[in-house]
Amino acid sequence: MTATAYRALEAKFRKIASLDGAMAVLHWDSATMMPAGGAETRAEQLATLAEIRHQAMTDPTIPDLAAAAASAIDVADGWRHGNLREALRQWRHANALPPDLVVRRSKANSACEMAWRSARGNNDFKAVAPLLETVIAIAVEVAAAKAAALGLAPYDALLDSYDPDLRGAEVDRLFADLKNFLPGFLDRVLAGQTKAPAAIVPAGPFRQADQRALAERLLDALGFDRHHGRLDVSHHPFTGGVPADVRITTRYDESNFTRSLMAVIHETGHALYEMGLPAEWREQPVGSARGMTMHESQSLLMEMHACRSIEFLSYLAPHARAAFAGTGAAWEIANLKRVYLKVERGLIRVDADEVTYPLHVILRYDLERALLAGSLMVADLPQAWREGLGRLVGVVPPDDKDGCLQDIHWYGGDFGYFPTYTLGALAAAQLYAAAKRAVPEIPAAIGAGRFVPLVGWLRANVHGVGSRLSTQEILAAATGAPLGTEAFKRHLTARYLGE
Amino acid sequence: MTATAYRALEAKFRKIASLDGAMAVLHWDSATMMPAGGAETRAEQLATLAEIRHQAMTDPTIPDLAAAAASAIDVADGWRHGNLREALRQWRHANALPPDLVVRRSKANSACEMAWRSARGNNDFKAVAPLLETVIAIAVEVAAAKAAALGLAPYDALLDSYDPDLRGAEVDRLFADLKNFLPGFLDRVLAGQTKAPAAIVPAGPFRQADQRALAERLLDALGFDRHHGRLDVSHHPFTGGVPADVRITTRYDESNFTRSLMAVIHETGHALYEMGLPAEWREQPVGSARGMTMHESQSLLMEMHACRSIEFLSYLAPHARAAFAGTGAAWEIANLKRVYLKVERGLIRVDADEVTYPLHVILRYDLERALLAGSLMVADLPQAWREGLGRLVGVVPPDDKDGCLQDIHWYGGDFGYFPTYTLGALAAAQLYAAAKRAVPEIPAAIGAGRFVPLVGWLRANVHGVGSRLSTQEILAAATGAPLGTEAFKRHLTARYLGE
Repeated sequence: MTATAYRALEAKFRKIASLDGAMAVLHWDSATMMPAGGAETRAEQLATLAEIRHQAMTDPTIPDLAAAAASAIDVADGWRHGNLREALRQWRHANALPPDLVVRRSKANSACEMAWRSARGNNDFKAVAPLLETVIAIAVEVAAAKAAALGLAPYDALLDSYDPDLRGAEVDRLFADLKNFLPGFLDRVLAGQTKAPAAIVPAGPFRQADQRALAERLLDALGFDRHHGRLDVSHHPFTGGVPADVRITTRYDESNFTRSLMAVIHETGHALYEMGLPAEWREQPVGSARGMTMHESQSLLMEMHACRSIEFLSYLAPHARAAFAGTGAAWEIANLKRVYLKVERGLIRVDADEVTYPLHVILRYDLERALLAGSLMVADLPQAWREGLGRLVGVVPPDDKDGCLQDIHWYGGDFGYFPTYTLGALAAAQLYAAAKRAVPEIPAAIGAGRFVPLVGWLRANVHGVGSRLSTQEILAAATGAPLGTEAFKRHLTARYLGE
Repeated sequence: MTATAYRALEAKFRKIASLDGAMAVLHWDSATMMPAGGAETRAEQLATLAEIRHQAMTDPTIPDLAAAAASAIDVADGWRHGNLREALRQWRHANALPPDLVVRRSKANSACEMAWRSARGNNDFKAVAPLLETVIAIAVEVAAAKAAALGLAPYDALLDSYDPDLRGAEVDRLFADLKNFLPGFLDRVLAGQTKAPAAIVPAGPFRQADQRALAERLLDALGFDRHHGRLDVSHHPFTGGVPADVRITTRYDESNFTRSLMAVIHETGHALYEMGLPAEWREQPVGSARGMTMHESQSLLMEMHACRSIEFLSYLAPHARAAFAGTGAAWEIANLKRVYLKVERGLIRVDADEVTYPLHVILRYDLERALLAGSLMVADLPQAWREGLGRLVGVVPPDDKDGCLQDIHWYGGDFGYFPTYTLGALAAAQLYAAAKRAVPEIPAAIGAGRFVPLVGWLRANVHGVGSRLSTQEILAAATGAPLGTEAFKRHLTARYLGE
């Protein structure tokens, strides 16, 4: 009977996985294929599926089924016990919010996000400020409701939605260390950079079809399985779909191929994680990717570590030259390295290099904690942003468009998400260092365009684990240490100062 | 309270429309975009949505809600009364089958369809015959169950699933007339054709990109709204999606552009019907397309009547020459007309011209009635096919691959569908003649690439009616007569004999 309970629970979550998969394809279609006139109908389709999904996820029989199932499972069966744990975690999150709050949040976030699009275009923060105030007020309510249901501090309850078990105290500790290290380090890197030749970005035009052909060659080299995935174009690059059918996107700039190419590699890192999730558990909670930190670690490991390495750039250079008939100094490996490792004090997070990126994230983390705590008013956000960026990165945005209006997250109601970008960077450094210790041939193999040794190690140590272990347990098992800043700092120091 | 009942009913059907729309996009994706490795997961997604849809459609509260709603609606409100009628029709169809029969049917049809794919490839009818026997036995059960629930004869209950209110007696009457007319007519057409110059198919290669550009030019001319639809490639051309986002497909043969181009026009006829459905009723039963006969009439009206007319071919010729840099006799209007109006005794239904096509359909109609009645055994089907095609069309297939294995329909469990192809051809002839009587400028406008007069008439008389009227009512209102063979015979006689 308890085995029956377990099977019943699996069937419920298999249905939820199917709904999630259907929604993922519809989202992908919206961003890549859908004609503009289909938007309204698509929104209704997605709302209908989301409502059905919510009903399935808040099914009141789930906790009793889980309790009955637990007693029948062998204590050594980590997968099934993990599956019950993750199923209950998802159930608790879904049940934490009263239905009217879910509806109010959805409406407030949609309205604010819509207003943000034009406010950013018009550089008009005041136009969106009242809506942002509402979004924040509702986020505070959400945090309180989740905190009560989950027994967590309010901000921790938000973090937990994106990254299970992540807590603010941990973020504080890691970010304090980076805040201490990075500004001085950045000064040294920039001083060194001025002494080297300037990076020359190869001059285009680069036909979209040629960029795509090169990208597909790299997909194959990295191990992206095109039998189970495809590459398309969207306004913002993303990874969607389901593990058996992963959809990645990029956009092509015909005047500069370098950024689109690295975006493809970034998304391929995400895609390899999804493709490598444990095949027999993919439709269950325990078979999902672990959380945003681990997901971002996989994209950054590929983009920042494997594919900005001198080995990879040496492999890339002749392929890039052949793809675009490139000749001259701009196409030499040493120059490509300068292009791909250029560091600068910039205004925009998504354009930032790996040295300054954490500073952009730390700014957002500090500000969102203050906004949620009520110690920073929305009206004062633009000024706080200018001051903070000046202090942390050393530049001050001339306007809000390139300041506090640049990112969609807060305007869409996402609080507690930003830190995972930088925690992912820390995890990536730690995992890549461990992979190279365990499989010393990895850099040389990458230099030959062979990613099998690296991806094999990631499959065994990260991808194939799914959500059976926590983020910290995965890192401890794979790297011998909990999440920390040491590997990241060592990586930066070696790469940018040669020390 | 009764107004509340009506609103509650609308909400239920709006949800069903959203589920149908989500499934339509997923089906389209499967045929156009999905990597092969995604098939299994996609099947689970679709099965989950189909199950949820079936639950919603068999909701036991629907009849009482409809009864309560009916008493509150103004008798003159044809849309709302029509909506209740169509809602109940759909509910009755969905409820007619016991759940175990639905499951058995689904499994038997899937298994047989799968076996058919290899049986056709191997020209091995015996390999699929036992599975086809099971499919037929289940179709007989389905027909009996639907007949009992709907108060119809068994075959009529099957027809009613594809084309509401269509009855076998009507099909018998119309097909008897065609059986009488077409063979002698065909002899005369072929005799005349031998005296004319032979049709020269323009020689390629025709680049896919050039074919696509020409197809898109024609989409625009015909009035396909690309803000609400798109054209892609699939193995078999089809029309999918939803009215606000219609997805049509074709496939390109680089050695012959003429068939792909006409396939695009055929699907555009379907698409214009969907795009022209009444905007405020699209998500309700009364706002759906009327049935397969009307749908096929719209594709055939565009393909056979509007776009094989001398006016359209005169418009097309210079565009085709420009698209493919065509020169010489093959590109002259008179030759294009011979290519597009060539009649021949062929083996394959989907390749048939408009003169022989009904004979292919009549063969299938006679055979499927005999198979369902038990008067024809599956083992005797190949021989019955050869005899029937020889008698009706005058050719005998050398093997079953190009004989009784050529169409997917029966092997996938579709009985009662074939007749609608030819009823659609009859309706198309009748509607096009009526359109030209009502708006005499239509042919000249088409000669100038202007489809607005034709499509405007179709919007007013067919598309915009949705399912408010029956097929016969739509035809009577638009053409002044019920569905008949006269317009079709007059059209063929004028076009092929010049009489």
